Formats: sequence, structure tokens, C-alpha cells
Amino acid sequence: MTNRPHQEQTSGVQRSVLPHVPAAIRALAPYQPGKPIEELARERGLDPDRIIKLASNENPLGMSPKAMAAVGAALADGARYPDGNGFALKAALAERFGLAPERIVLGNGSNDVLELVARLVLQPGTSAVFSQYAFAVYPLVTQALGARAIVVPARDYGHDLDAIAEAIAEDTRIVFVANPNNPTGTFVPGEVIERFLHRVPADVLVVLDEAYTEYLEPADRYDSFAWLERFPNLVVTRTFSKAYGLASLRVGYAVADPAVADAMNRIRQPFNVNSFALAAATAALADTRFLAESVAVNREGLRQLTEGFEALGLSYLPSKGNFVAVRVGDAARVNDALLDRGIIVRPIAGYGMPQWLRVSVGLPEENAQFLAALASILKERS
Amino acid sequence: MTNRPHQEQTSGVQRSVLPHVPAAIRALAPYQPGKPIEELARERGLDPDRIIKLASNENPLGMSPKAMAAVGAALADGARYPDGNGFALKAALAERFGLAPERIVLGNGSNDVLELVARLVLQPGTSAVFSQYAFAVYPLVTQALGARAIVVPARDYGHDLDAIAEAIAEDTRIVFVANPNNPTGTFVPGEVIERFLHRVPADVLVVLDEAYTEYLEPADRYDSFAWLERFPNLVVTRTFSKAYGLASLRVGYAVADPAVADAMNRIRQPFNVNSFALAAATAALADTRFLAESVAVNREGLRQLTEGFEALGLSYLPSKGNFVAVRVGDAARVNDALLDRGIIVRPIAGYGMPQWLRVSVGLPEENAQFLAALASILKERS
Repeated sequence: MTNRPHQEQTSGVQRSVLPHVPAAIRALAPYQPGKPIEELARERGLDPDRIIKLASNENPLGMSPKAMAAVGAALADGARYPDGNGFALKAALAERFGLAPERIVLGNGSNDVLELVARLVLQPGTSAVFSQYAFAVYPLVTQALGARAIVVPARDYGHDLDAIAEAIAEDTRIVFVANPNNPTGTFVPGEVIERFLHRVPADVLVVLDEAYTEYLEPADRYDSFAWLERFPNLVVTRTFSKAYGLASLRVGYAVADPAVADAMNRIRQPFNVNSFALAAATAALADTRFLAESVAVNREGLRQLTEGFEALGLSYLPSKGNFVAVRVGDAARVNDALLDRGIIVRPIAGYGMPQWLRVSVGLPEENAQFLAALASILKERS
Repeated sequence: MTNRPHQEQTSGVQRSVLPHVPAAIRALAPYQPGKPIEELARERGLDPDRIIKLASNENPLGMSPKAMAAVGAALADGARYPDGNGFALKAALAERFGLAPERIVLGNGSNDVLELVARLVLQPGTSAVFSQYAFAVYPLVTQALGARAIVVPARDYGHDLDAIAEAIAEDTRIVFVANPNNPTGTFVPGEVIERFLHRVPADVLVVLDEAYTEYLEPADRYDSFAWLERFPNLVVTRTFSKAYGLASLRVGYAVADPAVADAMNRIRQPFNVNSFALAAATAALADTRFLAESVAVNREGLRQLTEGFEALGLSYLPSKGNFVAVRVGDAARVNDALLDRGIIVRPIAGYGMPQWLRVSVGLPEENAQFLAALASILKERS
């Protein structure tokens, strides 16, 4: 037995346990989620039913009715553990996209698969490369693992893939590319991604985060799964949280080389995806009508929001996602005034964009109420 | 840019990416869950409705009706992200157990909080201490993090806390103690745990995994939360997957020193617990009648199973959980014969107990069918 002091001889965890926690973890600033409706209602004494939340890139249509029915059917087995292998959902994804099931890794949201792939290869002494303004989870997982972040300056707020390829260092193990990117909505055409893949060393994983890919117009679509044979270092991630409307349930997936998928499956928690998520995602995948409706509502909402911004003389970033970043000046003040009116959007000062707000596309009347409130707030100032 | 070969000049991920994946991860043997009912039905052409699953320590009563109602009510917000702070569930736990909410970390099952606490302090060059026959997740997370496992021989299949205290090395950062332990059902009285805590160095975390604590008889109960003030290196974990009947939904929690809880909250995924789990767990916590009924059914079922084993002349380990380990000889053969009869139990050869099966307590008729099948199988052999 060791001779280190016992608990009674010290006082408090600060002097004892915490020195063993890496400094990078102690210094982590946790992810700042969109403010929940109930939280705003508590804080400002508002009626939660009248609050409009356009803050988390959620599907304004709610869950697909078929997914709801699947949740109802799963209740009878609610005391059972989930199928840890996700047999039915993987089979449905394999069928839908023509994939071998052994390429698929299911996650507790795509956040989970992003973390799993990072944990395979990142550790102190390695680095990850990603763009300025890229999705916040990339720097967070990099820092939590004690790896170095190489942040590549954006070009017009979007990914500069040439600069990203140039930035790959000897110790780089992973590159994160979000397409479309959140929070900027910027997009890189498929052929540019494919050229980029040719430039990345074979021992560097490329994580292509396609959380918003379902919203792309037909002319913009590209088939990243078709690249997997030629680029075994490619890992494509997708989610059911956006166009499929299942953010509450937490389900996403990665598609990768079978050897990479196998390694990810070894370190994932055995029951990382809950039963209701598995059932709802399988049903949502089959509900092509709901998906098409979600995409159509989003297209109209993007138009409505951007026309509104133009009418107000505001700059915005043309977006391929289900949200749009708009430059409002003193975004903290505007955000606070919106909260007073029961409207939640997302300030993105944490992304280095303190003059901007990111607004998720809502239902037509929600978009209209937001635009009216924004106009009123901007008028007050002038 | 680095001069390492590009993808085209190599062949396959094995030669490129995988060398950067730590050997300990590549060698991980994933957790072996209880066989899902649907999987057995597919494999052996059985009617899933006639299969009896006593393999995963699930609640045979199903979900609490109040938890089911909470899931139904959560459907309307199914497209929204969960409350990443779990405000309502933490408030309910704080109220129920007289805890400060900042001591609580919610997880995607207690597996998640076990992994989070390990990730705080385990890395190559450190060690974790746990008992022979302890819960499989402890060696798995230790290996996945590249740390060394110090496995302490069991005493009568249970935890030998004196030997565990002696085994703590200079590089030890964490000790895992399951009470009751899974898969053996063994139990250490509260006063013995408390004495043990006095012996552990202040800079070593003690994870006290109480997944089965709700099943303890009143005489065995102890209040581990009351020790937290004196032992800031103590982390107590609990789950809603067993007595609360919510295994499908994945929700567990840790209670710890606020500084430890804060560090765990920094590295957890921002939406690690899904909305339905939050709602169902909050409802289940309030449904004290369902909990009492679950505990009563378990008490009777344990008696039924152990009396059955005694009638068959089989050794078993007296259990304080909702399962019992029974020595059947050639457990692989007996298990296979049970599967043929549509009965799923858990072989525990992976725990170093190749002659044993772990049987979860089911409903009275399920226990009876299992005992009858076991009797028939053992008779065949003799």
C-alpha cells in the first residue's frame, strides 16, 4: 500500500484528486447549448407555450408521425436494454444507402461518433485540423483529449480546403470538415471535397460531418459514401437530429472503413443508443414524405428569413443548412431583447462572431414573429 | 504540408490509420451483452413472444406506468434537443436524497458516468484497482484508456476490501467497488465500506457502483451520500436501468464532490441523456409504489430461484441483487440447451466463471419455466 496521505489528513478534493485531472480538461469551457424553453420561462417569468425557439437547428415540424408511433410501440419493452448492435437500424441504413452494415457505427447523436473517432487517434502529442468557425464540438473533443488544435483561417466564413490540406502537420491524426458547416451554413461542392481527399495523407482521418446534408438542393448533392472504397481514411457522419426531427432521442451514425468502424465499436458504450432512438430512427428513415416536407419547409423558411434580412438591410451568410447567420451589430444586446420578447436564437460570440446571431428556420409564423421582433429591436436603437 | 504518402499510394486502412490507434484499443474485446430476444428468434427460428429473457438484470414488471405516461407527454417536443443540464431530474434527485444539484452528473446509463470518471484520471502510466469478478465495464474502460488494471483476488466471490486497499499503488488513480456486485450478487456492509474509505489515499477516486442498491433489504441499507462530505474522493453511481425499469432509455447518475462533478460535466457530451430518459426517470423517481412492488417481486423471485437450485442440488451465490449466479457445470452446454428452449440467461465465462450462469429474476412463471427447463437439461446429461 502506498504512503500517500489519507482523506482525513487533507482537506477537500482540490488538493487531492484534481491535480490528476489533466489541465486541458480542467480548462474546458463546456459546449453552450441553445437555451431550453423551460429555462427561459423560469428566468424571465414567461409563458413557455408562447416562447419561440429558433436556437438549435431543430425541425420545426416536430417528429415524424411514424417515428412517434415507433416510440409508442417500443414502450412495452421499456424495461429491456436496447439492442447494443442496433441490428434493425443498421440494416435499414445499409439498405437505404447501399452500404455494408460493418461500415456503420451508431451513436448517441452524431456528437457521440465524432467523439469516438477522435478518441481513436487523438492524445497528447497529436493534433487535429479544422476551420475557423467550424462546429464547436471539434475543438472541445480535441482539447478534452489533450491534443493540439490547428485552426485554419476561414475564407468568406467557409472552409478553405486548400489551406486545410496545407496545415496538416506530421503529428496530425484527424481533420474535421463540416459540410454544410454550422454555424455559418457555408458549403463546399462535392468535387472540391473529393480533390481534397486526394491531398490528405493516408494515415490522417478525414471526418466529413454531414449533419445538414439532407437539406441540400438536388444540384448540390454528392455521394460521399461512394468515396469510401478509395479513401479508407474517410469517416462520414450524419444525424437524425435535424431533417429527421429526432433531436430529443439522440441518434447519429458514422460510415467508415470496416476496420475503423470496428475500432470505434470497440470503444463505444455497449448500449450507447437507446431503444426508442433505434425504433424512431428506423421509422423516420422510411418516412420519405416527412423528410421531403421538412426540406420544403426549410427552403421556404430560408427564403423568408433572408428576404426579411435584406429588407432590414442586414448582412447574412447564404446558408445551405436549416439556419442562417445574420449580422446584427451588438448581438448580445439584440439577443437579450429577443429573449425579453420570448424569442430564443443563438448568439455565436463563442465562435468568434460577436456581431452575429444564428437563427434556425422555424415555421412561417415563427419566422415572421422573429423578423418583426428583430425589426422593432433594431429600430429602438436607431 | 507533410510528406507522408497520400491515400492513392497505399492500400487500405490497415497500413495507414490503424497504427495510430493505441494497441490497447485494437485489442479490446467489446462488452458481451445479454442476447436480445429478436436476435435469438432470428438465429433459432423461435417465436419472439415465447422467448423468456433472464439475461440482463432487467425489471420483469416493465416500465412504471408513470414513466410511460411521461414518455408519451415528451413526444410533442420530440424534435427538440434535451435539456443538456437535466434541470428537472437533478432537482428531483436533489430533493429525494437531500443533495446539492451541483454534486450530480447525469449519464447515458451509469455506464456513461463510470466512463466519465475514468476518463478524468486514467491514462497510460496510471492504474485502476478492482476485484476479480467485478463488473465488466471496469476492465473495459481501464483498457480503453491505456491504463493498467490491478485485479484483486476475490474472497468467496466477493470484494476483499482489505486486499483492495493494500493493492493501491503509487500510480493508482481510481478504485471501482460494486455493491452489490454484478455478476456475483455479493455485498459488503456499509460499515466495512466506510472503514475502507478511511484507508484509501485522498488522491485516489473511489467509485462506489450502487446499480442494485434499491434491492437491498432494510437491514442492509446504508447511506453512502452521507459520506461525501468527509470523503471528497468518493463517487457514488446509480442507475434507473434496474429497479426503476428504464434500461431501454439509458439513464444513470453519479453523486460526487462538486469539483469532481464539475470536471465530469465538462467532458460529458452536452446532450448525453435523451429527453425521454429525463422525463421517464423524473416520473419513475416519484413512483415509489412501483419501486416497492419491483423490490417485492424480486425478493420473492430470488427465493423461488434459490429454492429451485437447492432442490436440484446446485450451488449458487447468495445474492443481494436482482439476479443469482448458479453453478451448473458445463455452462456453455446448458446455456445452449436453454437457448434451444427459448430461454436466455447469461453465461459468465468471460468473468472467469465458466461453470456458472447468471440468471436474472423474472416473473414467477418465467422463473418456474426456467427452473423446469434447467432440471430437464441437467437430467439429460446424467
